[in-house]
Amino acid sequence: MSKLRIGVIGMGNMGSDHAKKLNKGIVPEAELTAVSEMDGNRLEDAKTYLQGDIGYFATPDELMDSGLCDAVIIATPHYDHPRLAIMAFTKGLHVLCEKPAGVYTKQVREMNEKARESGRIFGMMFNQRTNPMYRKMHELVHSGELGAIKRVNWIITDWYRSQAYYDSGSWRATWAGEGGGVLINQCPHNIDLLQWICGMPAQVRAFCHEGKWHNIEVEDDVTAYMEFPNGATGVFVTTTADLPGTNRLEITLEMGKLVCENNTLTLHKLGQNEREYCFTTKDGFAKPPVEVSVIETQGDNSQHTGVIASFAKAVLDGTPLIADGEEGINSLMLSNAMHLSSWIGDTVALPIDEDLFLEELNKRIAASKHKVTAGI
Amino acid sequence: MSKLRIGVIGMGNMGSDHAKKLNKGIVPEAELTAVSEMDGNRLEDAKTYLQGDIGYFATPDELMDSGLCDAVIIATPHYDHPRLAIMAFTKGLHVLCEKPAGVYTKQVREMNEKARESGRIFGMMFNQRTNPMYRKMHELVHSGELGAIKRVNWIITDWYRSQAYYDSGSWRATWAGEGGGVLINQCPHNIDLLQWICGMPAQVRAFCHEGKWHNIEVEDDVTAYMEFPNGATGVFVTTTADLPGTNRLEITLEMGKLVCENNTLTLHKLGQNEREYCFTTKDGFAKPPVEVSVIETQGDNSQHTGVIASFAKAVLDGTPLIADGEEGINSLMLSNAMHLSSWIGDTVALPIDEDLFLEELNKRIAASKHKVTAGI
Repeated sequence: MSKLRIGVIGMGNMGSDHAKKLNKGIVPEAELTAVSEMDGNRLEDAKTYLQGDIGYFATPDELMDSGLCDAVIIATPHYDHPRLAIMAFTKGLHVLCEKPAGVYTKQVREMNEKARESGRIFGMMFNQRTNPMYRKMHELVHSGELGAIKRVNWIITDWYRSQAYYDSGSWRATWAGEGGGVLINQCPHNIDLLQWICGMPAQVRAFCHEGKWHNIEVEDDVTAYMEFPNGATGVFVTTTADLPGTNRLEITLEMGKLVCENNTLTLHKLGQNEREYCFTTKDGFAKPPVEVSVIETQGDNSQHTGVIASFAKAVLDGTPLIADGEEGINSLMLSNAMHLSSWIGDTVALPIDEDLFLEELNKRIAASKHKVTAGI
Repeated sequence: MSKLRIGVIGMGNMGSDHAKKLNKGIVPEAELTAVSEMDGNRLEDAKTYLQGDIGYFATPDELMDSGLCDAVIIATPHYDHPRLAIMAFTKGLHVLCEKPAGVYTKQVREMNEKARESGRIFGMMFNQRTNPMYRKMHELVHSGELGAIKRVNWIITDWYRSQAYYDSGSWRATWAGEGGGVLINQCPHNIDLLQWICGMPAQVRAFCHEGKWHNIEVEDDVTAYMEFPNGATGVFVTTTADLPGTNRLEITLEMGKLVCENNTLTLHKLGQNEREYCFTTKDGFAKPPVEVSVIETQGDNSQHTGVIASFAKAVLDGTPLIADGEEGINSLMLSNAMHLSSWIGDTVALPIDEDLFLEELNKRIAASKHKVTAGI
């Protein structure tokens, strides 16, 4: 196999974008061989913007059974991700799945089991992991040169959406259609980066406000407090209603502080470990010297293209993925924990009680109302 | 009365500083006429650094009864503030009290009642209110031109203290000696500014960690989540263990955002109210234009001198104080709410149950241990 033959399932915003890129040959290790889309108009549209010998299918099943693909990219609404991924593994195909992997972790666990059983590659489209700033933060934190993490504050409130956005689809921002709001639609990347860089918290207490700023039934305002296994604490604040919003990720460690804001990564580095300094200095108010530097980050921010290329290479050459399917569980586990904590009004330990989460989610799905909308 | 005759009670760090300034005539409306200090060595020291005709007393009672003072500045350890203030009002003296007003709100309520009964002026030493940046934030928020507050995030983690600091006094960082840690000793100014600028929250859920980073019995790491009466939310994060710490106050309003960091106040101003924009734009992802400007702040940061001068003018001419005694209740109410929420592991509504707070505090005072220390 010289090139990975990829089929894209779902020709919405993301799926059509992936298909176009593959079709233009932007990822040399892969080629677009098929697409599927249940909406007839969209499928016809695809024929106008894609070139060459491509299979067009009305259903994912037909695409998978066509023999045209070695792998699929799943870019459908969230709820279908697990079902389609499992179907693909069962049919012997590799899967690259758009975020979130699913809506609850039990599903994603099953996806990973099926991937293992099938021996196929399961990658997650966590394209923010290709951002050189976050890569550098991950590298610096994991190298150990800055010591243990003490605190993380991420104010990520620049996900502004108007009411028109929510009114554009009857499934949008409903429990039945999306399974959540800003946590499940906008924040999976941030939550993935948080756990990738800082690790998984041991417990979470979150405060999610549903329909606070928009006429929607899911959360559009979240503040989450986290405690990590080593005792570090953290805060994650997000919303789709702040203008202008903020994207400021600050990580304090024993040897200093990393701040990522306005596309700049700044390192404040101590000459000495604070934990040692605290107990050895004779001066109550003194502080050791701090060296402040803007960290030059190298490499392209290849985003989706980079993730697709690494997926193709993983299949072809066995090289590592940018994010594998197990990572889909972690980020969703953290997102689910925030929802569950807010629903039960209490701190929840991780891993969460998945049955309780599903029970609570199902209550909300049962009460979910489809809205009168202007759009698709 | 051409000049207010002030006696300073307590010749520790803050008291001796106030006495020196008054003695040098830095506040034209006031003069230093007496000091008191229970530690004989400190009182002798005061005679070396103060000049002129000044009464030196071993006890606050003698100072107050001397007839040398119209007013007192109370700069003793926290627990003595209420008792001494009430004594002063009873003896017909005006009072300027160092922060915090007391350790629990019931005390401060009584202080204010005694002030009212006596008809004397009761001022609080909230000297950070003279900072032009915070004054400007207060002005901009209260003018209404930015609309209602939606969110406030204050990361105020630059209160670094080493173990040597805590070991420098047996009363330090003990429930019996101080009644709290970073909230009661370092943060009263920040908590006062928060409630002064943003108003009092309706409820608080805080997570206080006691002795997390130091060998102390009180809290040195706090994350508090707040909800305000209008639905705005907020986060307040503080510690004495982060190096380098952060002091970043961000307030998001309907018409934009104010960010105060690194001695710079930045205004991000929308051309249109976001609440209106959200429901009228037809575009799901668009954002109205934002004008970003660094706000020039005018006036001196007069700090303690400014507060003492305004106190003297309030007595002499009836002009307004920078912060009156009632403000001492607000900031302490908020600080007490954070403690209480963490102690009971639940959200608390404000005003808090003061009896429950005192009961919980008394449990901790009863179990409080004086430490073996190197110092005073």
